[in-house]
Amino acid sequence: MQFTARDIALLLNGTVEGDPQASVDKLSKIEEGSQGSLSFLSNAKYEPHLYTTAASVVIVNNDLKLTQAVNTTLIRVENAYSAFTILLEKYNTVRLHKSGIEQPCFIHAGAQLGQEVYVGAFAYISDGVTVGDNSKIYPNCYIAGNVTLGNNVTLFPGVTVYHDCVIGDNVIIHSGAVIGSDGFGFAPNADGSYSKIPQIGNVVIGNDVEVGSNTTIDRATMGSTIIHAGAKIDNLVQVAHNVEIGANTVIAGQAGISGSAKIGERVMMGGQAGVAGHLTIADGSQINAQTGINSSIKEPNKKWGGSPYQPYQDYLRANVNTRRLPDLEKRVRELEKLISELTKKDEQ
Amino acid sequence: MQFTARDIALLLNGTVEGDPQASVDKLSKIEEGSQGSLSFLSNAKYEPHLYTTAASVVIVNNDLKLTQAVNTTLIRVENAYSAFTILLEKYNTVRLHKSGIEQPCFIHAGAQLGQEVYVGAFAYISDGVTVGDNSKIYPNCYIAGNVTLGNNVTLFPGVTVYHDCVIGDNVIIHSGAVIGSDGFGFAPNADGSYSKIPQIGNVVIGNDVEVGSNTTIDRATMGSTIIHAGAKIDNLVQVAHNVEIGANTVIAGQAGISGSAKIGERVMMGGQAGVAGHLTIADGSQINAQTGINSSIKEPNKKWGGSPYQPYQDYLRANVNTRRLPDLEKRVRELEKLISELTKKDEQ
Amino acid sequence: MQFTARDIALLLNGTVEGDPQASVDKLSKIEEGSQGSLSFLSNAKYEPHLYTTAASVVIVNNDLKLTQAVNTTLIRVENAYSAFTILLEKYNTVRLHKSGIEQPCFIHAGAQLGQEVYVGAFAYISDGVTVGDNSKIYPNCYIAGNVTLGNNVTLFPGVTVYHDCVIGDNVIIHSGAVIGSDGFGFAPNADGSYSKIPQIGNVVIGNDVEVGSNTTIDRATMGSTIIHAGAKIDNLVQVAHNVEIGANTVIAGQAGISGSAKIGERVMMGGQAGVAGHLTIADGSQINAQTGINSSIKEPNKKWGGSPYQPYQDYLRANVNTRRLPDLEKRVRELEKLISELTKKDEQ
Repeated sequence: MQFTARDIALLLNGTVEGDPQASVDKLSKIEEGSQGSLSFLSNAKYEPHLYTTAASVVIVNNDLKLTQAVNTTLIRVENAYSAFTILLEKYNTVRLHKSGIEQPCFIHAGAQLGQEVYVGAFAYISDGVTVGDNSKIYPNCYIAGNVTLGNNVTLFPGVTVYHDCVIGDNVIIHSGAVIGSDGFGFAPNADGSYSKIPQIGNVVIGNDVEVGSNTTIDRATMGSTIIHAGAKIDNLVQVAHNVEIGANTVIAGQAGISGSAKIGERVMMGGQAGVAGHLTIADGSQINAQTGINSSIKEPNKKWGGSPYQPYQDYLRANVNTRRLPDLEKRVRELEKLISELTKKDEQ
Repeated sequence: MQFTARDIALLLNGTVEGDPQASVDKLSKIEEGSQGSLSFLSNAKYEPHLYTTAASVVIVNNDLKLTQAVNTTLIRVENAYSAFTILLEKYNTVRLHKSGIEQPCFIHAGAQLGQEVYVGAFAYISDGVTVGDNSKIYPNCYIAGNVTLGNNVTLFPGVTVYHDCVIGDNVIIHSGAVIGSDGFGFAPNADGSYSKIPQIGNVVIGNDVEVGSNTTIDRATMGSTIIHAGAKIDNLVQVAHNVEIGANTVIAGQAGISGSAKIGERVMMGGQAGVAGHLTIADGSQINAQTGINSSIKEPNKKWGGSPYQPYQDYLRANVNTRRLPDLEKRVRELEKLISELTKKDEQ
Repeated sequence: MQFTARDIALLLNGTVEGDPQASVDKLSKIEEGSQGSLSFLSNAKYEPHLYTTAASVVIVNNDLKLTQAVNTTLIRVENAYSAFTILLEKYNTVRLHKSGIEQPCFIHAGAQLGQEVYVGAFAYISDGVTVGDNSKIYPNCYIAGNVTLGNNVTLFPGVTVYHDCVIGDNVIIHSGAVIGSDGFGFAPNADGSYSKIPQIGNVVIGNDVEVGSNTTIDRATMGSTIIHAGAKIDNLVQVAHNVEIGANTVIAGQAGISGSAKIGERVMMGGQAGVAGHLTIADGSQINAQTGINSSIKEPNKKWGGSPYQPYQDYLRANVNTRRLPDLEKRVRELEKLISELTKKDEQ
């Protein structure tokens, strides 16, 4: 795919400064630009690269004032960063476009597929499944009975969705993610063994959710494990049965949420953080990486750290204090010596 | 599927109080009951819901004394909770029943399949594999050479079992789990690079074990990585080469067990906990979430927490003390002031 | 497969002591030897087993001096351990040899396969893919458009490689690993929701790298996520977008590396350790299990522990000091009492 500066300016509603016929066929960072590449400049810190870059075209902000001559063609737009993001999206949409049914795949007669659906080879779609328009089911995906997928859903290769789960519009699920496997529920027997508690609920995922590679979201024992609209979940995250995750909450890689915990809206959870079972996390909470949450967080919009967790500032201070412990112990030893001397004098 | 109160009472050996023809076609929590749903009441805390629920039928304990009139049909049984669990199991068994060989799948001529086996499309069964009766191998599973699966085994979609592994009866393995991949063993070379140590052992899984989604259990370097009967392993757990996990041990999500560690029987490991290599964990140990075990635990049936770990009570106390450090430092400062004053007076 | 002591001695350039016709058909640890098994003795600690083992043949070091009679045939070599490893490798190479194209699989007409390649059933190879000689692509793998695989690469069952990624020679990737899924990048909108930042980079994996089961390596936003030659990555590891991992670095299970972090060469990262985004870790760093790295490490070849991290020795000391806190508090209380008495006396 090859584009001229003029094509791109038209698309972005921008103005060309330089050669409108300058042509590009790839994207690059400004500091790594080369002949035929398109870059952008948004952060002023990178401005020096603008005067040396080999990129053929660079998108810049309308209000940028040049301090030297440039060798590249500029496209001026309102917001260079978001303009570049729009370009990337279009580029990806074109590059990753797929439709049609590849063979061999397995589509049960009782499944209903929408318009412009892609089903890859070796994908499996069970009885009672509904797939919305423009959805893509890549190879090696498995969709069990009575699952509903909305419109414009993408399941990358090797995603498994167990029976009865419901997935909203514009949801993206990356490879290897497992949606709706059994919750971890067992009842102890008198002899020390366990009986499995059947897990008959499901998982409900709202619109615009993204789920990372190899993340696991268990079905509810009864009722639903719920991921609300707009939540973004990274790779290798564990979401246990009956958990509820609020709208627009963001959860980083390898974080884990235990059974029946209820995470609020706009929460940010760092990597490898954990939440114990049956807790509630207030809206807007910011949870540092590796934090261990062992009781409910009731105050919204606060930052927390440590395992077990405390307010983030206290956590920082506690670390400093812990590191000063050898010093504190020395001061106590010194005091003991002084007191001992004073006491002796006093007794004389 | 639709059932009357009488059908259910017969199945559970219970007695109907109300309309024996009351019919149900779904299950619900008592507080979420609706026309046509079946619920149960076990925990006295939920009794108020009994008098307001819209569920058509509710299973209750024989000894429940009503304090108000109810609008629903009751079924009285010895133990409402376990009766309900029995129902759920039957419901799931019927719903999830599968048998037969779907095409296309790959079954090597040298594999032996038992009676009433299900093999899903795109499943792969290699030479020398034995599959017991009533076992289910869902789509996209891969079973390498010479693997043995017992009777009544369920491999959900996308499970991989490497060569030579042995899996007992009634084992359930959830999607994406990998059994028998190479242990992480490398010998350092003089130039800083590593040579792979071939991993020629296997994994042996006992009867009644459950393994969660995307969990990984590595094969032994030599000999076997062993999961004993009745152990329950959650999602995203790492079990390294030559590990041994005792009978009826329960391991929560994202916990990790390093090479050659030996976990006792009836151990309970919390989420994201870790055990270092070559350690022994005594029977009945209870390990808190995010705990780091860096030396063997010899006393059985104790509770532990922290990273590095300590007795659970000490761990709680250490956290309290750490949080009081700013206060302790203040007390030391105060003492220093007092001593300094006393010393000055003393010198006068 | 059956071999005589003479066959093995020839292969290893060793000398037979005992019956050159002694034949073996399996491998065992020396303490678990049985009729027909081959073992080795390298660590002097295990020498007593040499005099009691039932193994038919044992490989020993040239300089071993027998202190008793043995019932087994010995093969003397320069280095028993490495000789045994060579044998294991040959054994595995023979056992796991595969070639040819199994049906049904999906190979796009625009893909190029080298010599002696294995493609398993239900594997999917897209347009523009290049596969080098002697590479093995097991069943249920998915290779997206324009991926390049080198020579002698092994992708175990169920590996997914997203488009444009580049994988070097002799790379081994275990089941369920996902290479090149989207980095976790979102731009916040004014209404609290997020817009996806398109991830148009790729993943580049150097020669001789091994990647464990269910590990995830995200593609770069732009540019490349890079795993340099000889790095070894265990199971369930998270490698975020734009990360760079140096040559011969070893990363244990469930460790996590956040976006744009740059890990040096010969680093050793323990299990469940985490590195925050945009940090640099010096060459040769040794990072203890469960460590949390929240700032760059500039000094090479040092050992670190704790979350947040500190020098390993300080971390050990801090733990000891924390455990002594109740004792320190008691000493402060004692001092307060003494001071109070002294002050009273002083005032009298």
